[in-house]
Amino acid sequence: MPRLKLTLEYDGTAYVGWQRQLNGLSVQEVVERALEELLDAPIATEAAGRTDAGVHALGQVVAFDAPRVLPLTAYLRGLSALLPPDVSVVGAVEVAEDFDPRRDSLGKRYRYLISNRPVRSPLRRHTHWELFAPLDVAAMDEAARPLLGTHDFSAFRAANCEAPTTLRTLRELSILSALDVIQFDVEGTAFLKHMVRNLVGTLVEVGRGRRPVAWVAEVLASRDRTQAGPTAPPHGLVLVDVRYRKPEGQ
Amino acid sequence: MPRLKLTLEYDGTAYVGWQRQLNGLSVQEVVERALEELLDAPIATEAAGRTDAGVHALGQVVAFDAPRVLPLTAYLRGLSALLPPDVSVVGAVEVAEDFDPRRDSLGKRYRYLISNRPVRSPLRRHTHWELFAPLDVAAMDEAARPLLGTHDFSAFRAANCEAPTTLRTLRELSILSALDVIQFDVEGTAFLKHMVRNLVGTLVEVGRGRRPVAWVAEVLASRDRTQAGPTAPPHGLVLVDVRYRKPEGQ
Repeated sequence: MPRLKLTLEYDGTAYVGWQRQLNGLSVQEVVERALEELLDAPIATEAAGRTDAGVHALGQVVAFDAPRVLPLTAYLRGLSALLPPDVSVVGAVEVAEDFDPRRDSLGKRYRYLISNRPVRSPLRRHTHWELFAPLDVAAMDEAARPLLGTHDFSAFRAANCEAPTTLRTLRELSILSALDVIQFDVEGTAFLKHMVRNLVGTLVEVGRGRRPVAWVAEVLASRDRTQAGPTAPPHGLVLVDVRYRKPEGQ
Repeated sequence: MPRLKLTLEYDGTAYVGWQRQLNGLSVQEVVERALEELLDAPIATEAAGRTDAGVHALGQVVAFDAPRVLPLTAYLRGLSALLPPDVSVVGAVEVAEDFDPRRDSLGKRYRYLISNRPVRSPLRRHTHWELFAPLDVAAMDEAARPLLGTHDFSAFRAANCEAPTTLRTLRELSILSALDVIQFDVEGTAFLKHMVRNLVGTLVEVGRGRRPVAWVAEVLASRDRTQAGPTAPPHGLVLVDVRYRKPEGQ
C-alpha cells in the first residue's frame, strides 16, 4: 500500500480552513472527496499544518495511504481535474510508509501581504490585509529582530491554542516593501496557532506608531497573550512551503 | 459645473466589461449608479477605453460632469464606500471642462500575465492565462521586435473592430519571465479592439514552437486578421494606466 505526499495550492477564500469542521466546507473535505473518487476507496489525509479559514497555501503538504498504485500523473492531472478551481495538486511523490507531514517537517515558510495605500485595492482584496495609513517599515523591521531565534512564543499564540510546549524557533522574519505592498516572510521550525498573524498584528502596532519599537521584545518576554497586538486577518497569509529531510519528503 | 477625472481599479471577473451592455452587469453601470447615489443626479461617464469582459484595471480613467462641487475625498472615500468590493476609486482630480479621457490620452499601458507551469494555479486563476507547456521566452522576445513602432495593426484587431484607422504606435512590448510567470508589458498611443490579446496570442504561437520567430512580422505585414494567432483570454489582461498631458489630466 503506497504512501503518497501531495503538495497543494489553494485559494482559501471560500473555505473554513484546511481541517474538516461542522460549520462549513474545508479544503480537507474537498481533497478527500476527490481522492475517494479517484481511488474508489475511503481516504484519510494528514496535513503538515492546519490553515485557518481564509488562509491560502502555495505549498500545503498532505499525506495518505493509497489502496492501490497509480502513476503520479494521476495525482497531478487526474486529481486536479476532480478538484474545484480553487484547489490544485502541484506536486506528488511516493514517500516512506512512516512519513508524517507534521512530525517530519523541518520548517515552514509563510508570507503575509499588506496593501498599504490610502484607498481600497479590488485586485488585492482576497490576498492582502488593507491598511490605509502609512506604516513605518523601518520601525517594524527593527522591532522584529528580537523575535528571531528560539523563544517561548506564548504571547503570540491564540487564546485557545493547545500546543503542549510553546518554545519555537524563528529562523527568518524579513519585511520587504515595494511601492505600496509590504511583505513579511516568516520561516521557522513550527508555529503555534495564529502565531504568524499575531506576530504581524503586533509589528503593525509599531508600524502604525501606536507602540515603540522596544515594545515587541517586551511582549515576547511577557509570555502573555493579552499583551500582544490584534491578530492580523487571515486573508493576507499564505503557507508558502514545508521543508523535509530528503529523500522521504522529496 | 466641475468636470472630474476618476482613476479606477477593478477586478473584471464578474463584469461584462467596462461598457454598459444588455447582457449583464458592466463596470460603467456600477460606477454610474454609485455616482448617482453620491450626487443625487443622473451621471454619464466617459472612459479612456473599453475593457472587455473579464479584463481588469489598475488605472482605468473616466470623466464626468458633476452637478455640484464636492471635496475630492468624497470621491476617494465616499464613492469607494458606495462601490462593490471589486471596484474602487484610486484617484480623483478636477479637470478642464473639455477634458476627454479617450481623445486626450497620450498613451496606455497594459500588462498581460501568463502562468507557465505544468499544473493549475488556484491563486492565479482570475489574473493569469494558464499555459502548461513551457514557452520559449527568448523566441517570443525576438518575434516581438518588429511590432515596435508605427504600423498598420489590422492583422491584430478583432473581426468586428470598427476603428476608422488601423495605424497605431507601439512604444514598448517587453516580455519578462520570473520563475513560472511570464509578463508582457505593452505601451502604445492607442489600441485596436482585442489588439493586446491578439499580439499575446500570436507571440504565444511562437513561444509554443508552433510557428517560427519570423512569422510574427509576416502576420503584421499581411494586415489580415485571419493570419494571426488566437486571441489570448481576457482574464490575463490589466489596463495599468493611461497617460495625459499635464495639467488637465493630472
